[in-house]
Parts: sequence; structure tokens; C-alpha cells
Amino acid sequence: MNTQELLATTVDEHAELVRALLEPALAKRGTETVLLADALDRITAGVVLSPVDLPLFRNAQMDGFAVLASDVATVPVTLPVVGEIAARATTPGALEPGTVVRIMTGAVVPEGADAVVPLEDTEGEGDSVTVAHSRDAGEYVRERGSDLREGDELLPAGIRLAPRHLAALAAAGLSSVDVVVRPRVAVVTTGAELVRPGREVELGEIYDSNLVALSAALRVVGAEVTIATRVGDDVDALLAALQDAASTSDIIITSGGISKGEYEVVRELLGFLRGTVGEIAMQPGGPQATADIAGIPVIGFPGNPVSTQISFEVFIAPLLREASLLPPAQKRTLTLVGDVSSVEGKRQFLRGRVVDGDRVEVVAGPGSHLVAGLAASDVLIDVPADTTQLGDGDPVETWTL
Amino acid sequence: MNTQELLATTVDEHAELVRALLEPALAKRGTETVLLADALDRITAGVVLSPVDLPLFRNAQMDGFAVLASDVATVPVTLPVVGEIAARATTPGALEPGTVVRIMTGAVVPEGADAVVPLEDTEGEGDSVTVAHSRDAGEYVRERGSDLREGDELLPAGIRLAPRHLAALAAAGLSSVDVVVRPRVAVVTTGAELVRPGREVELGEIYDSNLVALSAALRVVGAEVTIATRVGDDVDALLAALQDAASTSDIIITSGGISKGEYEVVRELLGFLRGTVGEIAMQPGGPQATADIAGIPVIGFPGNPVSTQISFEVFIAPLLREASLLPPAQKRTLTLVGDVSSVEGKRQFLRGRVVDGDRVEVVAGPGSHLVAGLAASDVLIDVPADTTQLGDGDPVETWTL
Repeated sequence: MNTQELLATTVDEHAELVRALLEPALAKRGTETVLLADALDRITAGVVLSPVDLPLFRNAQMDGFAVLASDVATVPVTLPVVGEIAARATTPGALEPGTVVRIMTGAVVPEGADAVVPLEDTEGEGDSVTVAHSRDAGEYVRERGSDLREGDELLPAGIRLAPRHLAALAAAGLSSVDVVVRPRVAVVTTGAELVRPGREVELGEIYDSNLVALSAALRVVGAEVTIATRVGDDVDALLAALQDAASTSDIIITSGGISKGEYEVVRELLGFLRGTVGEIAMQPGGPQATADIAGIPVIGFPGNPVSTQISFEVFIAPLLREASLLPPAQKRTLTLVGDVSSVEGKRQFLRGRVVDGDRVEVVAGPGSHLVAGLAASDVLIDVPADTTQLGDGDPVETWTL
Repeated sequence: MNTQELLATTVDEHAELVRALLEPALAKRGTETVLLADALDRITAGVVLSPVDLPLFRNAQMDGFAVLASDVATVPVTLPVVGEIAARATTPGALEPGTVVRIMTGAVVPEGADAVVPLEDTEGEGDSVTVAHSRDAGEYVRERGSDLREGDELLPAGIRLAPRHLAALAAAGLSSVDVVVRPRVAVVTTGAELVRPGREVELGEIYDSNLVALSAALRVVGAEVTIATRVGDDVDALLAALQDAASTSDIIITSGGISKGEYEVVRELLGFLRGTVGEIAMQPGGPQATADIAGIPVIGFPGNPVSTQISFEVFIAPLLREASLLPPAQKRTLTLVGDVSSVEGKRQFLRGRVVDGDRVEVVAGPGSHLVAGLAASDVLIDVPADTTQLGDGDPVETWTL
């Protein structure tokens, strides 16, 4: 086999290796046009120029009367009401000097009028109205294009679309927007012992939690899960799954099959795929692998559920968060409750629970199979490789889950 | 008409009125069972007890050899390898004292064995192996139930499901979970001038941005949009839409039709629906309404796009964030760049853009039609009602959008 032992040995070195593989794959993503209803949280592919003036036409800011400002320069003044303009499709005739028209908020201000007198500044109903306050030209009138001119930048490139951005697109009459294609990631879990949750297990089998966990974790960081599939300890089936994944995905994640025992299918296959596989000075999550199939990077995680989940948080989530313009996971220095010992030479990610806001206690043991323990935690405690002992009250670096 | 003028006059008073209407509606929500693939970010309806021991069976923590610890108490010792146990469905026979079996990570530890010697602590291949390090009983063995016992709490009630929680459910063999039904919210925009984005507009018509904005904003805070529909200035059509919405939703939001002009359909209808409508000392977003149809609360926002969006952030988003266990919108004190004047007696929410991390400049004017201006902002600057003037360098309270 041609599998290379990983050159990287520390968490940071392996993270750099993964970054070097994934960044080009993420950079290659194209663009697509999506309807506004599907565009929330997507990233604009380019600058969006407004196809129209906003507002589209000169309109009234208040319910009241459209006037010629010079007609109300001296008040009180009583003027004939010669019509009404509602907020709807209409082409009002020009206002004759010396007259006013009743106008609703948002309605077209007619030619000849240059101000709106709010209803509350007037008296009288019916054929005439008495205006109590004079108004300057332009008052309570929203000029066409005063928000934005046709051809001006409505939205910049490379922003994550929030509701207010979708509102601006809609207001300009756009029903769709060009966005960057989401990172398309395939998940392939391996292991003859894996059974789909909900089925019966026999002795020796376990439920596959990695498929569910990785699929959900990918959604959290804005990726699209193209394929989520489980293969047994069968190199041919794994190769077929990876080929399938490579044809639809930017990145492939596998779990399992990379330790040094028998039936390690990912390790076996990686020999044919310019793969690297080896031990990182990290616990849990020591065994890590990388490969390439048809130009698509494959990141191989160990199969133990806690190892898989933590590997994702450490090596892949930061890159996908960047690609999705999401903030990085919060890191905070908290105060340790109790004593902790850690294996020398390995960076350890312990499961912790925050208490009293700024203290953290260890939840469950360090075992990579303790899925319920991980579920009960809310931070990872990042213990440096050269630390073997931590005591009550010591400051510890934590990653918020 | 029976419409009551709103008793509330300040933002805080109206927010309390909306809270009093919405909290009972949100509390009434039932539960539903969803597949794990659909359960991300949903809230557990009750405590989930583990239906199984985790791990399901006693298994090997490392690749190596299952042994009787007392057989390797004195090392080096060479022992016959009598078989192999892989991680898959299997019922291995009991280990005879004085022998070992090759075992893979996660495989069933046979009866008679009480420790696993990792591969790296052994020498030799084939029929016999030489063990170099003694191991105590229990070493490198994961005991059945050591993570969690059948019947123990796997997940607490009322948590928002993250990937690690879904992993724990899957590991316990569960394929679905009982969750609280999401807040079901209907959106009805009103106004004869509104046109769906993508269509042609005539003079006097504008594109409806509120339907898009409110639908997206609801998704951001974890709600399900049951109905998103647009009606003209037609009381019968509005009533039909509200009745339809009431039959499928916990909450109804309307936009438009509540100012004091003509053709204010929501205002007209609210008279029949125990409604309140009136002016809040707030800009933008002054006119606000509430009502009840068939026991379902209706919250009526003004129709100007900026007013609608800010009303949602101020009055509804905080309640839905609470219901979805999402953190509240971040509020920060920033330093104002430039001078600002504000209307006396009205709490003003100006659009602002953060510069240099802790300073904020005003974007666009205060007009409630400036949708592009809102899109270009990243915070709301919350100017108290009694403040009329703010100067460069003054501290201002901001709400992060």
C-alpha cells in the first residue's frame, strides 16, 4: 500500500493540513440563483445593483392633503378639495394651483403639488379644508430615488443574507438573488458493527450516531449534506460510496476504519488514494487521515463517536464557519472546578459543563465512547499537550459547543 | 366600530401588552414526534430516558488482545492466540484461561477475559503473542452501561437539540424524539398598492417587501410560517385570510392598514375583533394594533417596510427567541459618530453601522420607507423618548441586527 504516515503530529499541524486541502475545494464553489424565500443565510455572489429607483415614485409620507407649498405659506387658509389619491395603481392628474387633493400615505404625489399637509394640521371635511400650519416645499414628500437610485448598490457582494437584506431585494422588485453555492459535503460512516437507529441490534453491533451527528453539525455551519451513507467493512463498497460522493460534493468526511487493527477499510483504501493516515497528539481523536478521490478532498475521522464529533469541531467546523460567514465558536477562559490529570504529550479535549457563569467542571471521563457524557456537556476544555495536571481554580481554555 | 384606542403609549407598555397576548398562545403549543434528521434546533418535550445501557455491551477500547489480567501479571509472557473478535455482530465463546484472543476496538470482550492488552504492548504474530506489559482487570475495557444505564436520563426536558444531543439519541437506538411544536405564525400583509416582487408595477404600486422580511425574520427566531399571504384593501378578503390563519396558527401578524387615513382595512376589521389600535411613542412604528380572532392573537404592524421590520424586532422577536431558547438580540453601548437629533417624546430606533468595533454612525435618514438604508445597517440605535439631541462621542444603546 502507498498510504503515507501523516507528517503532521500536533493538532495545529493537522489543522493546517486540513485547511490546505479544504480551502481550495471551498474556493472552487460556483454561484446559483435562488428565490428570496430560499435565500435566508445565503451569501451574495456579487454586488446587487438596484434595477429601480427607491422609492419607485414620489409619494406621501403622511395621510393628509397634497398641496402647493406656496398656497399654504400664509395660514390659516381654506382651499377646495378637488379629489383623492389612494395608495394603489393610479395616474393622478396634475394639481391646479389654489386647490388640494386628499392623499393617503404612500400614494402618488401629483404633478403640481410639492408638499403634503398632514391630516392633523387641517380642519374641515368634504369640499374644502382649512390648513392651520404652513409647509415648505418637500415636507412630508418622499422623493423618487431618495432611498436609492437605479443602478446604485442595493447589496454588497459576500454578505450573509438577513431578513432586512431580503426586504431590500423584494422592495426593488427582485424575486431571486445570485448566491454562492453552499459547501457540499458528503458523510460516509464505516464499520460492519454499525446499525441504523431504530433497528434491532445483535450482540457486537452498535447504533451509528456519527451519521446523524455529522449531518447535523454540517447544517449548523451552513453546509449542504449531499450524501449521508453508511458502509460496512468492505473496500469495494467504500470506494463506490466515495466515488459517488466525489461526483456531487466539494468535501468528503469519513468516520471509522483508520486505526491499526484489521478491517480498517478507510486505511486500506487510502493507500490507493494518495492518502495520509496516522496518529495526532490529541485525545480523543488521535487517528486522523486525509486523501483525495477524483480531486475531492477526503477527511477521515476515527470512528468513536466522541472522537468523530470533536474532530469535526476542531478540524472542519472552523473552515466551514468561515466559508459561511458565521462567527467562530466562542472560546473563553474559565476557572476549573476540581482536579484533572491529562496524558502527557497529547492535547486533550475534555467535556465540561459551565457552572455559575465562569467556572467549568469536567463531565464524564475522557473515553471516546461516552456519547451521553458529551451530550451533557456544553464546552470542550482544551488542555495543552504539555499539561499533565490541573487543579481546582486553575484557568482553562474552553470552546463553547 | 368597537375599536379601542390602545391604552399603551410607550414602547415598553405596548411590549407588555403584546407579551400578555402572545405568552398564553405560545404556552399552549403541543408536542410532536420528529425524526432525528429533522430534530436539529428543536426543543425536547420531556426528559428522554435511555432505552438501553450505553455502551450496549462490554467492549474493547483498543485494538489488541483480550486477556485474563492474572495471566499477564508476570511479563513478558507468551500466550496462545486462539481466535479473533472483530467489531461486528458476533457471540464469542468464553476465553479459556491461559489463552488470548485478538480483538478490535469496539468488539465484544468475551466472557472469561477482563482486560485488553493494546497491540503496541505485544510482540509476535500468528499462533502466539508475547505480552510485554501487565494489565489490571478492567484496563482498556469499556463496561456495559459505563456511559449511561438503561432508564437513566439521556437528555433533559426543554433543551434545544444540538448535534451532540442527536448523537446521544442515535447511539441509544432512538430514531425519533418528542419535541415541542414550533411557534406557528401566519403573516398577512395588506394594501391595494402591494405587488409581488418579480411582477410589473404600475404607477402608485410598490413591491411587497414585508411578506419576505417577516417570513424570514420568523424563521430566524425558530418559528414556523404557516401562511404568508397578501390581501388588498378588502375587509372581506382580510377577514377570510385571518380566519384561515387562525385555524392553523398560534399567532397572526399583519402589516399595514392601521393608520388614520381611508382604506385602512385592518383598523376597520379590528372593530369587530375586540381590537386595539393606536399610536405608540415610537419612531418608526408608531401605529400599532392588537386583536383576537377565534382565540388567536393578531398583532398589527404599520405597513411601512422599516416600521414593520423594526416592530417585529421590538415586539415579537424577543418573545419568539425566548420560546425557541435562542439568546436575545445583543445590546451594546457604542460611541456615536456625529450628531443626531430626535423627535421629542418618541423613542426612536435609528439605523446604524458599527465602525472600528465600538463606534456607530447613523445610516440613512429616519424615514420609515428607507428599506435600502435598513439593509445597509447592522444595528438599531435606541434613542430614548426624552432625548432630542445626541452629539459626537455620546454613548448610545444599540440592538444588533
